[in-house]
Amino acid sequence: VPESTGLGRPDRQPLTNPRAERVKAVSRLSGRSAREREGRFLVEGPQPVREAVAAHAEAVADGRPGPLLDLYATAEAADRHPAVLARAAQAGLAVREVSADVLAAMADTVTPQGLLAVSRTVDVPLAEVLAGRPRLVAVLASVRDPGNAGTVIRAADAAGADAVVLTDASVDVHNPKCVRSTAGSLFHLPVVTGVPLARVTAALRAAGMTVLAADGAGEHDLDDVLEGSAVGAGPVAWVFGNEAWGLSEADRALADTVVRVPIHGRAESLNLAMAATVCLYSTARVQRRETPARPAAPI
Amino acid sequence: VPESTGLGRPDRQPLTNPRAERVKAVSRLSGRSAREREGRFLVEGPQPVREAVAAHAEAVADGRPGPLLDLYATAEAADRHPAVLARAAQAGLAVREVSADVLAAMADTVTPQGLLAVSRTVDVPLAEVLAGRPRLVAVLASVRDPGNAGTVIRAADAAGADAVVLTDASVDVHNPKCVRSTAGSLFHLPVVTGVPLARVTAALRAAGMTVLAADGAGEHDLDDVLEGSAVGAGPVAWVFGNEAWGLSEADRALADTVVRVPIHGRAESLNLAMAATVCLYSTARVQRRETPARPAAPI
Repeated sequence: VPESTGLGRPDRQPLTNPRAERVKAVSRLSGRSAREREGRFLVEGPQPVREAVAAHAEAVADGRPGPLLDLYATAEAADRHPAVLARAAQAGLAVREVSADVLAAMADTVTPQGLLAVSRTVDVPLAEVLAGRPRLVAVLASVRDPGNAGTVIRAADAAGADAVVLTDASVDVHNPKCVRSTAGSLFHLPVVTGVPLARVTAALRAAGMTVLAADGAGEHDLDDVLEGSAVGAGPVAWVFGNEAWGLSEADRALADTVVRVPIHGRAESLNLAMAATVCLYSTARVQRRETPARPAAPI
Repeated sequence: VPESTGLGRPDRQPLTNPRAERVKAVSRLSGRSAREREGRFLVEGPQPVREAVAAHAEAVADGRPGPLLDLYATAEAADRHPAVLARAAQAGLAVREVSADVLAAMADTVTPQGLLAVSRTVDVPLAEVLAGRPRLVAVLASVRDPGNAGTVIRAADAAGADAVVLTDASVDVHNPKCVRSTAGSLFHLPVVTGVPLARVTAALRAAGMTVLAADGAGEHDLDDVLEGSAVGAGPVAWVFGNEAWGLSEADRALADTVVRVPIHGRAESLNLAMAATVCLYSTARVQRRETPARPAAPI
């Protein structure tokens, strides 16, 4: 072990055998059944791993168990990302050095860039989200492409949403491609999974939220619904549909209002991530103007 | 030739030899040098071809030459998209039937879904755009990924922008992946290419536009710049930087104001397409509220 990595301990040699049982066990987490059976998933690449380590360190500092179970790095990646590994070490998370071959065998990504973590699944119950009195929630109904789902989670995080819900008809949020597409946001805000849309909308409405469905065929224009209205000043949950076919009539009927993002030019539509970003940012803008930020809780 | 396709004429047999010179000449348009030498590019797949045919038919109806030079379809695709081929035929555009092998050999895409057109390059001079007194323009400076560039063109179209400019440091807008990512928008609004950023910003400013640069490190918040200001009521050009490293200091200095899309949550950033969509939609919203739509020109 090169001294510069700071990884080596005499009793922990680097893992170098891509066919070792431990390596195979990690690699199996690329599949949904292994993830569900073990309640674990892969976090790949410097940015997602950095955000996962930060979430872990914060949890540990709060006296809660952090999400991470294992952290693997090549010697080269350890040299390139010393702050990530230092923070992991401070949080009591041991880093195991692996060869590039082993990392490639573990990872779902073609180029995991030398860093990979195994995390406990991070989804939380819907009741826990509602207990926090959310003001902005994104609901993904029947979103099937993991990259799209991850990008919407990233947009929801950026817009300051309080939570994201993936219904039982949506992709597995712990899918490696979805995790990568969130760019770390999966560790920034609570994510609820596996609940049927009808139960989600009923629970959000019971918690005082207005449920808006985004659909190109919506009868109301986004800004008309939000601007200067009681809707825009109150808590809002957005329901987004499948990337190809949108929301079914039955799904639209579960919303209070079906809203379209206006198309001012000649484009047929926006893609899911763009439409969701516009809806969430517009809502955040109106809410923040209408209602000053809640004061921080007294210490 | 099956009768149902309506493609066959006795003197025009389907092209079935993937190694024919004509097929190779089309296939070479996947490369930038051939596109520049010949002033032609590939349009692949049902949606882009449909929008290209519509633009062609409109031009012909106006007495102008349309952009399309050739249209190729497999018998199966011809059966599946009769309206596209009928509109092409009405505009005097002959469709040539090809075998699936020939279409695959012509196309850059793995699955062109049976439809492919060859178009004249569609970029226009900057002076032509400025002559139309644009109110909303998107400028892509150093955007290198064709998919990102295409997605921003689609967003600009949806937001009702009057034009998109790709500077000389940006990807070739006629790259097949870029063309596909525009989802047809390349044929909806004027696109300018190949001009250095400094010349673009000088010309836009001379035409009375405020030049805003989007950057995560911008000193002003998007809504603060646009809402209730002279900027938001007037013509605005947005400069968007590279997907990985943003805008250089020199590029930012060319703008009147450097603007950041607020990050309300804990995400590090939005991706280029999401940030551009928020900027363009926010501007369109404010402009349309402050200034009623220009009346249509009298006939």
